[in-house]
Amino acid sequence: MAHQLFGYGDSSITVDLDAIVANWRYIDSLSSFKTKTAAMVKADGYGLGCSSIAIALANAGCKIFFVASLEEAINLKKTIQLRGLNDCSIMVLHGVQNNQEKDFFTHQLVPVLNDLEQISRWINFAKKIGTALPALLHFDTGMTRLGLDTKQANWLIQNKQDLDSLNVQYIMSHLVSAELVEDPINFKQLIQFKKLLRCFASLPASLANSAGTMLGNDFHFQMTRPGISLYGVHPCNKTINKLQPTFSWKARILQVRSAAIGDKVGYGGTFELQRESLIATIGIGYADGYSRQLSGKASILIGGQTVPVIGRISMDSITADVTELDQNSLLTDTAQLIHQDYGLERMALDLKTIPYEIMTNLGHRAKRHYYERV
Amino acid sequence: MAHQLFGYGDSSITVDLDAIVANWRYIDSLSSFKTKTAAMVKADGYGLGCSSIAIALANAGCKIFFVASLEEAINLKKTIQLRGLNDCSIMVLHGVQNNQEKDFFTHQLVPVLNDLEQISRWINFAKKIGTALPALLHFDTGMTRLGLDTKQANWLIQNKQDLDSLNVQYIMSHLVSAELVEDPINFKQLIQFKKLLRCFASLPASLANSAGTMLGNDFHFQMTRPGISLYGVHPCNKTINKLQPTFSWKARILQVRSAAIGDKVGYGGTFELQRESLIATIGIGYADGYSRQLSGKASILIGGQTVPVIGRISMDSITADVTELDQNSLLTDTAQLIHQDYGLERMALDLKTIPYEIMTNLGHRAKRHYYERV
Repeated sequence: MAHQLFGYGDSSITVDLDAIVANWRYIDSLSSFKTKTAAMVKADGYGLGCSSIAIALANAGCKIFFVASLEEAINLKKTIQLRGLNDCSIMVLHGVQNNQEKDFFTHQLVPVLNDLEQISRWINFAKKIGTALPALLHFDTGMTRLGLDTKQANWLIQNKQDLDSLNVQYIMSHLVSAELVEDPINFKQLIQFKKLLRCFASLPASLANSAGTMLGNDFHFQMTRPGISLYGVHPCNKTINKLQPTFSWKARILQVRSAAIGDKVGYGGTFELQRESLIATIGIGYADGYSRQLSGKASILIGGQTVPVIGRISMDSITADVTELDQNSLLTDTAQLIHQDYGLERMALDLKTIPYEIMTNLGHRAKRHYYERV
Repeated sequence: MAHQLFGYGDSSITVDLDAIVANWRYIDSLSSFKTKTAAMVKADGYGLGCSSIAIALANAGCKIFFVASLEEAINLKKTIQLRGLNDCSIMVLHGVQNNQEKDFFTHQLVPVLNDLEQISRWINFAKKIGTALPALLHFDTGMTRLGLDTKQANWLIQNKQDLDSLNVQYIMSHLVSAELVEDPINFKQLIQFKKLLRCFASLPASLANSAGTMLGNDFHFQMTRPGISLYGVHPCNKTINKLQPTFSWKARILQVRSAAIGDKVGYGGTFELQRESLIATIGIGYADGYSRQLSGKASILIGGQTVPVIGRISMDSITADVTELDQNSLLTDTAQLIHQDYGLERMALDLKTIPYEIMTNLGHRAKRHYYERV
């Protein structure tokens, strides 16, 4: 059992591909049938594994994938080509950087062009090879991060004919605070985006991230780009959640030992035992993305019972007080790190961060399992 | 230039193997020539790359490596075998788990035996194959994490003859607070460890981690096991540090754009610009281990000048205010994330953690470079 789950390592992540597909279908159902639903699979599919997830989604009908860098794009392209999924597009959010033109072309990748420099780089290359190259144009409407700033946008609008050597598939922008449904910035961005679109009348558009898909049809345009919602996390942190959880995170119980009253647990001896205790040491640590800040906050599930994590989190292990576990529970060799009493959202709250960060920091030592019910 | 550094990705980590070797030699020089100095290379060499580091250290004379799990051990074994470094031992801190006996034997790995169950498992296997198998015995002297507890230790001392079918190479224990030089727990552990050793009179011993190597000869015994110090971080957080820094962390400047007074930067619009500004977007984010908690705290170095990171850290990028950078600096395409004005220790302080956690969370998207002056 333990060997199947952990292999030669001490932890595992099991990804439910059906749940991810179901979440994609749910998000897709929020918009009209004319709106395409892409999938964000950057950062190795939010830490869960880009390749397996993209293949499952492509088989379910998703045809557009977004990644951050050229490297992520090339890796994904190789994967989907091997599976013969040749009708999928890969969009690269960081755009075409200096000297990357040829690689984008060779691998048939679509850059999201973020400024005039990237646009002119891609146009020049298109002219050189005599082919209209695919691209997305990204206009900033409030993030001040990537995308054409106001000056550049105005220039481009005046010089639209320069785009003739490109095949601009979508005009896009990105929402600042879509998870706050009532924030006026959403509508301010929407108005600004629509104004921009009037200058590029014939082109399809895309504005919505996960939270944006839940803001209503006005925000959907011709393509939505959900990320975190695919992975089961509600972008607005709603507890009533039609999204399905998509992964479990487990670790091996390395040892169960006794300890005396007054014994101190872990580095720095920060936790002193108030009774004779049983302590379990579990094979997960901060090097696996189980943050050191969880010391004294987290709990884990062993054989259906919740027990507190005590003492400091080490690099490769944690310690839990299992004194009150019943005998049956102690026969198992597995601890669940995210569970009914300590979910991903609660862990994020304790870490003063968002579930995205926990997921993208899931360590590479965990053995990955993927399952589909088919 | 950028392509060499970042490849198809957007960030890089360059590891100075000579510096790691120099640090190992320095730690080695702290103990007598009779004390062997091992190397902790678990958690992928504290995030910097176990294989390259182990090979460099083995070539410099290090013969003993510690890893956490059987998986790390098998990977390392394959690496050093390929290089013909057959006189190196690999010690596995989590010991021999259920059904791992054969794999430990096949790959000639040395388990650190942490409890009577592991000891009897290893003894039974040794008897079955009729060979005295190598092992370390780990006694707990205060961590309450791994290692034989008091009851088990007492039992084993009474039944020492059971160990005859093993080749026990070292008796070991682990220090709780060695980085606090004056902490009385260090001496309490030392006394307890010496008492244990008297029960196993003929056996070599090991107690010191990095900080332990700096507590004087009494703590060195026959082997020390430095980890963090090899990677250039002083375990006691001393600023006067004979250890050399061992890596640099860089990311690509994806875009430089203008922004107006009153524009807000990043998710949630948490940072409002007080002047017309130039903003650089850099290809590093929390998915790369550049923590989201660094928002509003960190600075980066561009062309020799330090600039503040502003707005929230995104998954794949950060934004910096480069309004005051001179023209020459803006010609570069690279930002340094750890630098003279914002070192690893300072970053750890801002994150309320220790450098170990930052290092072991360095993301896998960064292109790794290794260099030796030879």
